[in-house]
Amino acid sequence: MQIICSTTLNTIFDPISNELKDFDSRLINEISTSSRSLCTIMQDIFAAGGKRLRPALSFLVAKTLTEKIDEKVFLIAEIAELIHTASLVHDDIIDNSLIRRGKATVHSKWASAITVISGDFMFARAAVNLGKIGNNEVTSIFANVLQELCDGEIWQVEKKFDTSCDYEFYYLKNYKKTASLFEAACLSPTIVLNSSPQIQNAFKNYGKNLGMVFQIVDDILDFTADATTLGKPNLSDVLEGQINLPVLIAIDQASTEDKARIIAIIDELRNDKNKQLIDELLTLINKYQGIEKSFDKAIEYAQQAKLSLEQLAPSAAKKSLEALLDYVIDRKN
Amino acid sequence: MQIICSTTLNTIFDPISNELKDFDSRLINEISTSSRSLCTIMQDIFAAGGKRLRPALSFLVAKTLTEKIDEKVFLIAEIAELIHTASLVHDDIIDNSLIRRGKATVHSKWASAITVISGDFMFARAAVNLGKIGNNEVTSIFANVLQELCDGEIWQVEKKFDTSCDYEFYYLKNYKKTASLFEAACLSPTIVLNSSPQIQNAFKNYGKNLGMVFQIVDDILDFTADATTLGKPNLSDVLEGQINLPVLIAIDQASTEDKARIIAIIDELRNDKNKQLIDELLTLINKYQGIEKSFDKAIEYAQQAKLSLEQLAPSAAKKSLEALLDYVIDRKN
Repeated sequence: MQIICSTTLNTIFDPISNELKDFDSRLINEISTSSRSLCTIMQDIFAAGGKRLRPALSFLVAKTLTEKIDEKVFLIAEIAELIHTASLVHDDIIDNSLIRRGKATVHSKWASAITVISGDFMFARAAVNLGKIGNNEVTSIFANVLQELCDGEIWQVEKKFDTSCDYEFYYLKNYKKTASLFEAACLSPTIVLNSSPQIQNAFKNYGKNLGMVFQIVDDILDFTADATTLGKPNLSDVLEGQINLPVLIAIDQASTEDKARIIAIIDELRNDKNKQLIDELLTLINKYQGIEKSFDKAIEYAQQAKLSLEQLAPSAAKKSLEALLDYVIDRKN
Repeated sequence: MQIICSTTLNTIFDPISNELKDFDSRLINEISTSSRSLCTIMQDIFAAGGKRLRPALSFLVAKTLTEKIDEKVFLIAEIAELIHTASLVHDDIIDNSLIRRGKATVHSKWASAITVISGDFMFARAAVNLGKIGNNEVTSIFANVLQELCDGEIWQVEKKFDTSCDYEFYYLKNYKKTASLFEAACLSPTIVLNSSPQIQNAFKNYGKNLGMVFQIVDDILDFTADATTLGKPNLSDVLEGQINLPVLIAIDQASTEDKARIIAIIDELRNDKNKQLIDELLTLINKYQGIEKSFDKAIEYAQQAKLSLEQLAPSAAKKSLEALLDYVIDRKN
């Protein structure tokens, strides 16, 4: 797969630009709560933007199957974004990250009370949508995603600075915290649109694999992006003790001596975040091509995702789903 | 209605004692998460007990309609307890209450990360149950309850020390934060058991009115119970600025001068929680029979609840639902 990223997200989303506009206006304007401060926070959060990647996936999948987007697909797109945003909001409490998307987090801007509730309110609204869709299978899919997200989040907290984590753990964690929701956003529209099992399976695989790509690249960006483009402090994952793919690869590939040194550095980083230690770690990761090999893995997943789309008839939406894979691999934020 | 409380909760729950035993064992043992620490916390929380009032309601309602309790009623009972517990857990973060049920709160015992996630996990498991039940109406009912709970919680945070709140606000807040879940726990079994609209309506009203009784008495207990029986510090609501029924009644009934004094005291309590101020407030509440008149209101709601049950054929479960009204009014914790 060639990595070219001349395409912007806007171009990729062109076949669903009207739907995304409607989506944004619904999301921001139809917050039905009697609390003005809750409304303000929710509008604040949703108006801050974000890529709308998960709703876009639901719309693109639906567009490959039908011209006019069904109301139920709108509800699914909204659920995906609500769950994603709620988990970000609660994560802000959890990891006390000071900056996300280049803005002060809700948690630091507002009292923690309102933060907890606004996340809960998003879950509640997602549940309301599930009731409106009235499809049992879709309810179960998103309920399971919620469980996976909690699991993934807990794993992340429990396994900080734990260098005994292996590839299997890493990929399963990525599935739980990211790919499961991508999968649900792609699979659910095919269910409400009564697609064949083959089509359902194809989009399930596409979503899951794209999610894996997305998370691996996210982990790589922690090493390669700077704070301005990524919108969060560079190396924040590694400083927080997240053992991500570039580190895992370095540990796996290193000589006995280097491996011991990497493990020792990570252990020291618990209490001492000094620049020299970090530079030494980066040098070791580069020595064993941690970043390049992580990219190779991301590209492998992207190829799997692309393969799933092969059985689809040509369409603008299909092209967008393919282009999205390149975009996600080559993204800078 | 005569207030006699020789009956214990165990006696009242006698017709459903087996179901409650099964319920507890399912709740504590069937926590399907791969995280050991999440399991431990959840078991810790659920094994700590609680009255299991909401699941008991679902079981008692079902028992008036059918001898053998349907699996779907079990799932409903579990949803009610999960949502209740999740909201308690998140409330602990919100109001930083140090003691609940006489034990250190999860929040103070564990890191706030795990606290947020364990609440989210309970919501997730509730959603999984909704998927298993597969009844659209039940999904919508509980989704709306989640929204009401968030609303109620926000209201409580926003309106601290706000003496301009009126009765209407107070009762609606009680509905949102308490009665809506009681209502759902009573109504949902009638839906999955395909009861007539009359029966559905009867139990909806019973649950809602019982919930109102429960919350009014809870608010009264803040003034009358001591920390050992209530399991939380006495007067904690009033010190936190919650304008509950006894205060509202005093404000409503007081002479112009006393009314101004009550409002002034509550305002002073924002920053100065001294004993003399509190004693003066209590004297004024007693002068205008704030506690007695709150009880009268609770009894009115209980009478409404009792009325809803009239159309039911006599049964042990019906008797328990009636006895529960007396119990809730006369409870000490």
